[in-house]
This record gives sequence, structure tokens and C-alpha cells, in this order.
Amino acid sequence: MSKTHALIVSAPGAAFEKAEMPVRELTADAVAISIKYSGICHSDIHQARDEWFEGIFPMVPGHEIVGEVTAVGDAVTKFKVGDRVGVGTFVDSCGTCEPCKQGMENYCRTGNVQTYNGRHYDGEESYGGYAKDVVVKEAFVLRVPENLDYAATAPLLCAGVTVYSPLKHWKVGPGMKVGIMGLGGLGHMAVKFAAAMGAETYVLGHSLSKAQDAKDFGAKDYLMTTEIFETHKDFFDVILNTTSTDLDLDSLLGMLKVGGTFVTVGISPNKQEFHPFSVVTGLRSIAGANTGSIAATQDMLDFCGEHNIVSTIEMVDASDPKTIDNAYARVVDSDIRYRFVIDASTI
Amino acid sequence: MSKTHALIVSAPGAAFEKAEMPVRELTADAVAISIKYSGICHSDIHQARDEWFEGIFPMVPGHEIVGEVTAVGDAVTKFKVGDRVGVGTFVDSCGTCEPCKQGMENYCRTGNVQTYNGRHYDGEESYGGYAKDVVVKEAFVLRVPENLDYAATAPLLCAGVTVYSPLKHWKVGPGMKVGIMGLGGLGHMAVKFAAAMGAETYVLGHSLSKAQDAKDFGAKDYLMTTEIFETHKDFFDVILNTTSTDLDLDSLLGMLKVGGTFVTVGISPNKQEFHPFSVVTGLRSIAGANTGSIAATQDMLDFCGEHNIVSTIEMVDASDPKTIDNAYARVVDSDIRYRFVIDASTI
Repeated sequence: MSKTHALIVSAPGAAFEKAEMPVRELTADAVAISIKYSGICHSDIHQARDEWFEGIFPMVPGHEIVGEVTAVGDAVTKFKVGDRVGVGTFVDSCGTCEPCKQGMENYCRTGNVQTYNGRHYDGEESYGGYAKDVVVKEAFVLRVPENLDYAATAPLLCAGVTVYSPLKHWKVGPGMKVGIMGLGGLGHMAVKFAAAMGAETYVLGHSLSKAQDAKDFGAKDYLMTTEIFETHKDFFDVILNTTSTDLDLDSLLGMLKVGGTFVTVGISPNKQEFHPFSVVTGLRSIAGANTGSIAATQDMLDFCGEHNIVSTIEMVDASDPKTIDNAYARVVDSDIRYRFVIDASTI
Repeated sequence: MSKTHALIVSAPGAAFEKAEMPVRELTADAVAISIKYSGICHSDIHQARDEWFEGIFPMVPGHEIVGEVTAVGDAVTKFKVGDRVGVGTFVDSCGTCEPCKQGMENYCRTGNVQTYNGRHYDGEESYGGYAKDVVVKEAFVLRVPENLDYAATAPLLCAGVTVYSPLKHWKVGPGMKVGIMGLGGLGHMAVKFAAAMGAETYVLGHSLSKAQDAKDFGAKDYLMTTEIFETHKDFFDVILNTTSTDLDLDSLLGMLKVGGTFVTVGISPNKQEFHPFSVVTGLRSIAGANTGSIAATQDMLDFCGEHNIVSTIEMVDASDPKTIDNAYARVVDSDIRYRFVIDASTI
């Protein structure tokens, strides 16, 4: 089995270090990718610290991967050596459950194979994007438009599609008013997308320090969430929540137009409550969504190519692995505008 | 001002008695209706007893009205004397708010005029269907298909459209599995509709005593709600709740397929809770709906005409007003299969 240079966490919460880690065999249906850049997602931190479930260590986090094809298996038809490609949050799915058959592999009922901290169906551990190489099945590899900046494209593979997919599902477009709750890694992408889709887009937050950024990303205005419950009743067609805080759902639902939808992609660890009147009196919905399908991810990348949309990033030089630990600390403190991206040439 | 014979409640919770009550003037845009039958809705009981808000007394309940046109105003074009017509839960709306302009008068943001226990925009009290006559603006009068039994049509005007409207909104049809929670006045109509729309329909309840009725109405099966949380995961496209009980939402959401919707038309007085994971992990929605628009009500009546669908009823002779008090007691005890209808000739 071949190996690659990677940034690893050897045990829950341990500091990052460099190591050689296995790379999967290049089977007939797989593509070998030389990783160029890898985004840092808040979920990487939760998993590297075992905050969600018992992880597999050593761990190579990273599911926002862009790179260049260096080899293809014999049966590969979609990609050739030199192609610009991306890999997102999962690298295989069962293909037989109802969601898979409907092209919604992100909701695979068997359980899809997470890009890292998971196991392939053959039992091998999956290792992620904080590395120089990865081998992924062709069907789970995305094409990256030529005009997009490589590094700033990486965060599209998770943060991007996670918000793009629900915005498309709830048909955001011209004539609609959309509120984006939270302006972080996900929120800043949601603003760029909703605005590019033609919606009148607002950021709902709790600090005006990001108001100018919101407008620069395409928002019409930055609104203080708690101050608009009364002034913006029946105002929004869609509110997309990217935060993980507890929600005042009755007040939020009251800001939706008749037939409007509150959709969350952020997950509070706690149960949330609402009064049935809040949905019944306005044909309103409370919904949730989890990342996006392969088709939705490609659709998003193509949309980004057409509209020249990328993430707003800060580059991380990983020559000294401590820079990753520092980046993690800053993500936890929300001290990043708006996504860290690791330069894989420094790994 | 002309008068009509009616069944009234003179004060909150008082026994029914007969009285002469005012009828609105026949303006140019209005239709005079000789009421034939009037359904008894559970909400009549809540209002006659002041259980929701301070009502207007004396009260003439009733918002499930069918009858025959006896006179039309000069500007009326849709109806003529002798037409079979119906009136539902509201008899006017502002016409200027966004929902009204979109033909969703049931969500009128100004507040539509409730058929009874409300006030017309000119300040006059509104009196409902437990009476011999009513005058209603043409735009809020529905056409009743010739082939439908008059009496059994009455409950369609509230119970019917309240469940028909969300079933249509969430596109229930062939290839879908639909669960109807509760088999009462609303639930039994929902089963008839969902089955006629071509969906594989199930009743979710807590007593098998209605299992045969469920099947007679078109359900594939009657399922004990609490026994199927594990056996029917990812099973339903839509679950429609017609009960007013507190809900185990996480378990109910777990029975929805990816992209499925739980919609409630019943309203518990309490807040309901759910874990965000329950919606996020399956692109699921929790929604609510309130009656239906005039267009949806006409669409439902036409659908009933085509499919020969009416309510399953028990007739009430109101010669002695105490029969209404007794009927109310039986509704509260869920001792009615499935809707009481008052014969207005006995008022």
C-alpha cells in the first residue's frame, strides 16, 4: 500500500503532527488526486477532539479538498490526468437504498463513507484532506471550474454545498426575501449564493462588526436578530440558520411570510421548542438539511464558476503543524473571516 | 334588518335555545342562502364555551353550511336563485394583504371575517350556520356539485378543506405513503381524500376499534402509532396530524422518508419539542396549515363531486335544542362517527 505525507491527530485532542499515512489502492473506478488545498471545517475540530462520538485515531481530518488528478483507474471515464477536481464530505455510499437511488447519497440510509474518521465498506479506515494525496472513487469526485481560485474553492466542498443545497431545495430566487442567520464559514457562503440567485438577502446576527462584510458579500442589510422580531413580521420567504445556538423558534417563525420555511443546517445539542400556532397560522415549516448530494455539489461548483463565487479565506502554512492547532483555537473563538485553508504543499 | 330562526348560546357555556337573530342586508355583491344543513365542528364547542378567547354573545355557531340560493344582489354573476351552495369558516377578507392578493384569504394578515363569533368590517357581529338563513358575499360562497348528498356535504366546508388543503399543498398522490394521525371528523375526511388522490394511506391511532372504518374509508391499514416508531422508519412521505395531543415529534419525524413532511392541522395548547437532528438528518420538515382558501375549497368540492366523496355523518334533529347540547357532549367524548350535521328544517 502506498503512503502520503499527512497532518495527523494521534489521539483525541492531541496536537497536530506530521506522519506518513496509507493511501487507498487505485482501483479501476478510482481517481488519484494530488491535493493542493484543504479547508478547515468546524466539524474537523469536533471530531479531532472526540466531541461527537468515539473517533478512529490516528486521524487525518479534512473534507474540503481540491487538487489535481495524477492517475485514473482503467474504468474511469469522467476524469483524466491533470483535471482540477474536488472531494467533499463523503467518498462512497451504498447505492442501493432509496435516497441513493434517487441521487441523494448525502442521506444514504446504509450510512455513506465519510471522507475521514470513517471506514470504507471493505473495512479500511478513511483518511481525509490534510494530506498530499488521496484516492477516491470516480463517482464521488467533483469537477472544479477552470476560472475558480484553487485555494478559495476548497471550502465550497462542505461549507458551500451545505448551504447551497437547501437554498436550491427551497427554490430561493428573484422576488424572494432570504435571511441568513450567522455570518461564519457557512453563513458567508449562503449570503453569496442567495444574492447570486437573485434573492433580497439579509444577514441576521448579533454583532454589527460584520455588517460591512455582509454587504460586500451581497446582502442588502445586516439585521440584529433580536431587534427585528416585531418590525419584520411576515417578512422572509426563507430563513436559513447556520448557527448552532438554541433558537427562539416562535419569534423566528413569526418573521416568515405565509408559506415560508425556516431551515437549519446548524445543530444545537439541545431540543428546540415551538408552539403549533406558529406553524399553523402561516402555513409555515421548520426544516433541516445535511450537506448535499454529489449532483448538488457539482451543480454548486458550476454555479460558482458561472458567477465567479469562492470562499473568503485565510491561508495556513502547515510547515509547523502547530499552526493547525492555532487555527483550530481561532475557529473555536470565531476569529476567522471566513475559512482557513491549508496549503498542502507545506505538509 | 330581516331576521331568521337560529340556535343560540346566550352566554359562555349556556344551553342552546331558539331565538330570532339578525340577517345581513342583501347588498349588491351578496347572496341570500336558505340553509339546509350545518355541521357541528369541535371549534364550535370551544367558542360557545369561551375556551379560546372572549366570544361575542349571543352566539350562533356553525361554519359548515350548505343551502340553496334564495336571492342575489344586483352585481352577483356567479350564482342564481336555486343554486346549491356552501359557506365555510370565513365570509370576508381584506383583499389587500399579500396572502389575500395571492388567493390565500385563509391567511389574511388583516384578519378575515369569521363566519360567526366575529365582526364584519362594518362592525356588525357575524352569525353562523345553526340557523335558517344567512347572507354572504358572493366571493365567499362555494358551489356544491349536484351529485353530492346535501347533508353529508356540510362538513366538507371546514373539516374537509382543512385536511384537503395541506394534502394538496404537499402534493399527495400516487406512489406516496401517507399517514393520517387520528380518525375523527378531520381524520376520516383526510383518509378519504388521500386514498382518492392515489396515495397508499394509513391511519395512525391508539385504538383498533376504528380499524375497519379506516379501511372502509380507503386506508390500506390502521397502525397503532406508538408501536410503529421502530418498524416504520423512513416509511412515510407525509404524516398529517389531525389530533390536538402533545406529539413525540422525534419519533414521528423518524418515520418520514428523506424529504418528508410532518404537517399538523391539530393544535395542542402546549409547546412541542424536537431535536434538530431529527430534521437535519433527513431533509425533513415540521409544518402546519389552517383551513383553506376559497379556491382550495371550491377545488375540494369539485374533487368530491368527481370522486363522490362526502363526510360520514349522524343527523341531528334540533326541534328540541337540548339535542345540540347532547351532541356537543358526545363530540367532546369522541363519541361520534364521524360528524354531526344539524337539519336546519328543525330549527
